[in-house]
Amino acid sequence: MKNIVLIILDGLGDRPCQELENRTPLQAAYHPNMNYMASKGINGLMSPISVGIRSGSDTSHMSLLGYDPEKYYPGRGPFEALGLGMDIKPGDLAFRANFATSENGLVKDRRAGREFAGNDKLAEAVSIDMGDYSFRVRAGVEHRAALVISGPYLSDKVGDSDPHKENLPAREIEAMDQNAIKTSEVLNKYLKEARRILENHPVNTGRVKAGKLPGNELLIRSAGKVPDIPSFEEKYGFKGACAVGIPWLKGLCRLLGMHVEEVEGATGTVGSNYSGKIKSALSLSEKYPFVLVNIKATDVAGHDGNPILKKQVIEDADSSFNLFRQASGRLVVAVTGDHSTPCTVKDHSGDPVPVMIFSDGILHDGVSFFDEFHSASGPLRITSNDVMNILLELSDRAEKVGS
Amino acid sequence: MKNIVLIILDGLGDRPCQELENRTPLQAAYHPNMNYMASKGINGLMSPISVGIRSGSDTSHMSLLGYDPEKYYPGRGPFEALGLGMDIKPGDLAFRANFATSENGLVKDRRAGREFAGNDKLAEAVSIDMGDYSFRVRAGVEHRAALVISGPYLSDKVGDSDPHKENLPAREIEAMDQNAIKTSEVLNKYLKEARRILENHPVNTGRVKAGKLPGNELLIRSAGKVPDIPSFEEKYGFKGACAVGIPWLKGLCRLLGMHVEEVEGATGTVGSNYSGKIKSALSLSEKYPFVLVNIKATDVAGHDGNPILKKQVIEDADSSFNLFRQASGRLVVAVTGDHSTPCTVKDHSGDPVPVMIFSDGILHDGVSFFDEFHSASGPLRITSNDVMNILLELSDRAEKVGS
Repeated sequence: MKNIVLIILDGLGDRPCQELENRTPLQAAYHPNMNYMASKGINGLMSPISVGIRSGSDTSHMSLLGYDPEKYYPGRGPFEALGLGMDIKPGDLAFRANFATSENGLVKDRRAGREFAGNDKLAEAVSIDMGDYSFRVRAGVEHRAALVISGPYLSDKVGDSDPHKENLPAREIEAMDQNAIKTSEVLNKYLKEARRILENHPVNTGRVKAGKLPGNELLIRSAGKVPDIPSFEEKYGFKGACAVGIPWLKGLCRLLGMHVEEVEGATGTVGSNYSGKIKSALSLSEKYPFVLVNIKATDVAGHDGNPILKKQVIEDADSSFNLFRQASGRLVVAVTGDHSTPCTVKDHSGDPVPVMIFSDGILHDGVSFFDEFHSASGPLRITSNDVMNILLELSDRAEKVGS
Repeated sequence: MKNIVLIILDGLGDRPCQELENRTPLQAAYHPNMNYMASKGINGLMSPISVGIRSGSDTSHMSLLGYDPEKYYPGRGPFEALGLGMDIKPGDLAFRANFATSENGLVKDRRAGREFAGNDKLAEAVSIDMGDYSFRVRAGVEHRAALVISGPYLSDKVGDSDPHKENLPAREIEAMDQNAIKTSEVLNKYLKEARRILENHPVNTGRVKAGKLPGNELLIRSAGKVPDIPSFEEKYGFKGACAVGIPWLKGLCRLLGMHVEEVEGATGTVGSNYSGKIKSALSLSEKYPFVLVNIKATDVAGHDGNPILKKQVIEDADSSFNLFRQASGRLVVAVTGDHSTPCTVKDHSGDPVPVMIFSDGILHDGVSFFDEFHSASGPLRITSNDVMNILLELSDRAEKVGS
C-alpha cells in the first residue's frame, strides 16, 4: 500500500501565447522534474467536472477530492465564509454580505463607499446569538463580508435582503417554500437587530463625523446551506491532510475533517513558498495516507494575462519537485490543475488540463513531457471525478466491486 | 447484419514485470493473430465498470453483457450458488453456506474441520420442500456450500445465521425490515429442520465414530435476491450463446437464458482447451448472433503472480485466433479482458484493459499491436458498459435513437 500526494497547480492549463512564441506557459517553461515524472508515469488529459465545462476552483477541488459538486456544492455563500477563514459545519446556512449605507429606509450605497476601516469591529458587533440561533459575521476586502448562521432546521430556500440596486429599501427575506418560513423569520428578526446595532455603533458615528459613508446596513445574498457531507476519513477510511495557501481551500479541508498544515510563507498567491509546501507535503505523506497540495500562483498569473509570470511560477514550483524522485517507491504522486486559466482568456476556461501520475511499478506510456500538447498522447482521458478512484487504485487502497 | 463474438481474456491487463524485462505478459507474448486483428480493427482502452474501479469478474461480466451491475448485481450469495453449478432464477434468494460443527447449542468449528467427505450427501439431505418453499443446498470445496430458496415474496433484507465466531450459538435469522419478516420465519423454520436432519444423518454419525467433526449445522450468510433481470433475448431481440469454463459464468449465462455450450476440456483454468473454445465459438456464431467466450487462465496466472505463465497462456490462446481471419466478413470479433490482474498485484486492479474490435469494413486506426502500450494509441476510451453498444452498432444491429 502506498500513500498519495495530489498536487494541484491552480489554473494550470493554457492556450498558445504570443509572448511565448505561441507556446503555452507550461510548454515554454523549463520543468525537468515534472518531465521526469511524466516519463515514468501515466499521462493524459483531465476535464474538470466534465468535458468542456468551465469549472470554478471550488467545484473542481470538491470533485478532485471525490465529492461530486452536483451533490455536495453548497453554493457561493458558504465558500465566501470559508474564504474569510470562518469555520462552517454541516447544517449551517451562509450568505455573502455587504456593509452598505442606508438613509431614510433606502439603500444609498450598496458598498458604503467601499470603506472598510472598522468593518472588522462592525462584524464583531453583529455577531450575536438570538434564541436557538447563532449569527457570525466576518469582514473581508472593502465592503465585503460573510454571514454564517447555526441553528435548527435552517433552509437556504430564502431570498436576498440585498435589493441589488440603489435607492430601494433593503428587502425583507422571503421564504421560497413552506420549509423556509421559519428561516426567513429568524433572518428578518436578526437583520432588524443588526440595523439597530450598526446605526448606533461608534465606528459608524465616527465615519459620519469624518464625512464618510457609514456601514449601517448588512445586505445579504446567495444563501447556501452546508450539506450533510461525509468527512474525508468517513469516505475513504484513512486520514487526509493538506498544504495549501488559499483560505477557502483551507476551510473546505477543515470542513472535510482533514488536517490543515500551516506552511510558513504559503500565501496562496505569487511568490508563495512553493518548496516549503512540497517539503511539507512530503513530510505529511509519512503520516497521512493522502496529502493535497495547491499552488495558486499559476491561476493568479492566468487571471492577470501574464504568460511570462505563469511560466516563471511553473519553473519555480518545478525546482522543488525533484524531492519526489526518491519517494516513488512509497508514494503515488499526481500532478494536474483544477482547471485552465488561459492568459489569453484571463479567466477559467473549459479546456482540459494535463494530468500525470507518477509511481514505481505502474505502466509507462512513452510520454516524456508534461504539457498540454505532449500529455495528450498519453492514455488518460478522464474527468476530475475519476482522479481519486485512480489514485486509490494505484496506491492499492481501492475496494473491489463484486468478486 | 453480422454476428458478434466477444472474447474475454480474464484478468488480461497487467503492469511491467521484471521477469519479462519490464514488459507486460501481453507485450512480451508472441501473439501474431491478435496483432493482425488489431491492425485491421479499432483499438483502445476499456475501463471495467468505470475509470479506476477495481472490478470483480462477476460485476464486470454483467456490465460487458450490457447489464448494469448497479441495477442487477444480486450479491455474493447468488454467485456462490452459480459457481457451484446451481440454477437460480429471478425471485430466488441465495446464501453462501458452511457445514459447521455445533455442540450443546454452540458453534465449535465454523468449518467442521474443513472436512468434506459426505458433504454432497448432507447437502442432498437438507435439500427439501417446506410448504410453498423449496430449499436446495449444494456442497462446494471443503466446508463450503450454497443455499437457494425458491418461493413467494422472498426478501434479502435478512441477517446471517453464521455467528462469524466460534463458541457462540448459531443466530436466529433476523428481519431487517417489515417485508422480510415472513422470509426470516421461513428460514428459521428451515434451519431448525436442517439441524434435525443433519444431527442424525449417517454421514455425521460415521464421521463422529471416525473421530472427525460432524457437519451438523448449516450456517448461512450473504443473502442475495436474484433480481428481475431481462433475458438476453428480451434485451437484445436475438439469441446469445457462450463457450466458457467457469461454473458461475455458465450459471450467469443460463440465468440470462443464453445457450451454454459444453466444450470438451474447457476447465476454466490453466491448460483449458482454448482452441476447442474458439472453434466452438465460431461454430456457435453461425447459429447464434452473439457468442461470449471466456478464457480464465490469464487471470489464474495473474493471481499466481506468474508472468511467464500468463505470457504462455496468451500465446496458446492466440494460436487458435487465426480462425477469425477468414470470418471477418460475417463477424464482429471483440477481444478484451474483464479487468486487469497484474502479476505484481496478484489481484484485480483498476487499470484499464486493452480492447480491440475486428471486422471487415470498419475504420482502421493504425494500431498494429494489441497490448497495454500500443492499444492506448487507438481511439477507444470506453467502459465495459459501452462494449455491447459498439458491438450492436458495428454488426448493424443497433436501433436508432431518434430519427
